[in-house]
Amino acid sequence: MLSMVIRMVARMSRGVDVAIVGYGVSKFNRGEYSNHSLYELALRSVVDMFNTMGFDMDLKDRIDALITSTTYSKAYTASILVDMLGIRARIVNRVESMCSSGADALVAAYSYIASGLSDLALVVGFDSHTSGLLLDWDIARGDMRHPAHWAALYAKRHMHEFGTTREQLAMVAVKNRRSAMANGKAYFSSSDAITVDDVLNSKPVVEPLRLYDCSIACNGAASILLADADTAKSICKEPVWIKGIGSSSIGASINSINLTEMHATIDAARQAYGMSGIRPEMVDVAQLHDSFTILEIMAYEDLGFVSKGEGGYAAEGKVSIPAVNTDGGILGRGHSSGATGTAQIAEVAIQLMHKAGSRQVRDCSIGLVHNMAAAGTHATVIILGVN
Amino acid sequence: MLSMVIRMVARMSRGVDVAIVGYGVSKFNRGEYSNHSLYELALRSVVDMFNTMGFDMDLKDRIDALITSTTYSKAYTASILVDMLGIRARIVNRVESMCSSGADALVAAYSYIASGLSDLALVVGFDSHTSGLLLDWDIARGDMRHPAHWAALYAKRHMHEFGTTREQLAMVAVKNRRSAMANGKAYFSSSDAITVDDVLNSKPVVEPLRLYDCSIACNGAASILLADADTAKSICKEPVWIKGIGSSSIGASINSINLTEMHATIDAARQAYGMSGIRPEMVDVAQLHDSFTILEIMAYEDLGFVSKGEGGYAAEGKVSIPAVNTDGGILGRGHSSGATGTAQIAEVAIQLMHKAGSRQVRDCSIGLVHNMAAAGTHATVIILGVN
Repeated sequence: MLSMVIRMVARMSRGVDVAIVGYGVSKFNRGEYSNHSLYELALRSVVDMFNTMGFDMDLKDRIDALITSTTYSKAYTASILVDMLGIRARIVNRVESMCSSGADALVAAYSYIASGLSDLALVVGFDSHTSGLLLDWDIARGDMRHPAHWAALYAKRHMHEFGTTREQLAMVAVKNRRSAMANGKAYFSSSDAITVDDVLNSKPVVEPLRLYDCSIACNGAASILLADADTAKSICKEPVWIKGIGSSSIGASINSINLTEMHATIDAARQAYGMSGIRPEMVDVAQLHDSFTILEIMAYEDLGFVSKGEGGYAAEGKVSIPAVNTDGGILGRGHSSGATGTAQIAEVAIQLMHKAGSRQVRDCSIGLVHNMAAAGTHATVIILGVN
Repeated sequence: MLSMVIRMVARMSRGVDVAIVGYGVSKFNRGEYSNHSLYELALRSVVDMFNTMGFDMDLKDRIDALITSTTYSKAYTASILVDMLGIRARIVNRVESMCSSGADALVAAYSYIASGLSDLALVVGFDSHTSGLLLDWDIARGDMRHPAHWAALYAKRHMHEFGTTREQLAMVAVKNRRSAMANGKAYFSSSDAITVDDVLNSKPVVEPLRLYDCSIACNGAASILLADADTAKSICKEPVWIKGIGSSSIGASINSINLTEMHATIDAARQAYGMSGIRPEMVDVAQLHDSFTILEIMAYEDLGFVSKGEGGYAAEGKVSIPAVNTDGGILGRGHSSGATGTAQIAEVAIQLMHKAGSRQVRDCSIGLVHNMAAAGTHATVIILGVN
């Protein structure tokens, strides 16, 4: 164990270098998994990672931390996966913060590695489309419990203050559905192509949002493997480094003061940009939390890609922004609470490793992940880079 | 944010110093809390911490991480508590690993501080007596689902191999109930005193275990406040330092090879002793995971306080060991999954800060926490010290 102490001190003294060295994603869908095989769904993403990355099975035994990210109501998911994988590990638990569990689990894994408690940490995000989205907390809002009520408030206010149009909202849905077509694992496929008119004429949900402005709850799983610098270089040719981390949780009361911005996102972005020294205009590819079309437009602004009020124009392509939601985002890939954040991280890693095939963003070296929960009361921003 | 980077590098370069600076514990009981007021129960332990430690309310606003430890089936507990406390925080999520969630949440907080992402982290463990103890996993065991079935296997094997007696088991229950009498927050009070005969004559559960060999599921909450070295020294006269951390998750199949020892505990202890440089005989006070009497006896052995097979004699007082389960332990204080580990940590902190009143262990400076889950398949050991 003296070796562990020496490793910890050595790691501390040279600063924090933690990299993503692998990713795996399951098909996002509905209905195929019952609750009792959620573990199988989770393991599919791990198997996909070993296949995609070409890892030897021996690598499995070097995993010393396993963090699950899920809102599944049953306990002990991480230890059960350790047992199913037939490994022993040190740091084994679940991280849960609703829809931002995935990014927060990555931050946890980063900290275990940075603090010297782990060398090789597996994060497994998974969830069922039946996992509850209603919180005890939501009861305080009376009849306005569904996330769509919140999103509609944001959309109305943005339209009122900045002249954002329903067409601009619709363009986000059209773009993300189109991107999903190049991602064989997305919920929506090429047979689900939509036009702006389709969105505008889809079933009203809460004015001004229509059905196609809203994401769909899915089964899904996505795994991420993280390592310290030495381990990363020894097992991966193209490690993707964690450059910046930001996270913020501010409570619904604070968040609701101004309905055109997400304070948690602004807070988290400020931290992540500051830690990384990267500015918004340097980001090449970004996965944003687009559970509703308006949220992607607000994220353009809150992350500093465009000025406040210009989000709608960015959706129209009239203002330049990074490549956003290249795998279809939540609107195209589907929303699976515990897996949403890890799928976002996987897509940025895929892009930065230049393994995205027909949806590859050219010459990208810096990526950003924006994962959010519960009407924007919690947000996590992670900045990744290849150097 | 540059200041955060400088702080991170500074913290890394001088090694990892993280301390417990506060603790708060609710009354452990049954029936008083419905699910909807579990948050109130959690907050009672936070309020108790502010009162007990004499903290200014301003300190609340300096908390930058809030980790919940609970097996409660609903999501987003940590962000909801942030909202109820009226604070903003960065790292906000739940850590869950069944009955060892509490110690694992402390390890998470340690890592967030050691990696530079947090300066002042609040861990809030809480649970209801109705929180489910049966796992999906347990179904594989057919009719042998209840933890008592496992504990009975361990007890029978220990009695067979080492001649451990039912009387020795009973002495653990008598001792811990007695200790609970000096702890006003324990489930069992002075009116619940028992003798060895009472244990031996209590209702049979699974042979050889009787009712009083088993712990009772409770409502409970316990909070722990952690800080980096500079912050710790500025707000606490007697910080309790985290000296060693060990954790292990090994799967039921591996664990069951030898029924007289808990491999996860042995693994975790080896790590924690190695990291801290502390040996078993240096430990003054320990909180061990005594959800069944046999488990405390096995923990004496697996933690190195006595040789294998001597646990029964230690229960009789014939072999010298540290002061164990001074607040009543799980058998006396009650078992509240997510709060059990944080209550254990709180008790060691209380002892090392010499604030335990009539149950104070004299001249103690080194403490150990042993928190376990699901038939010993996961264990975490934390070693604490005042210097």
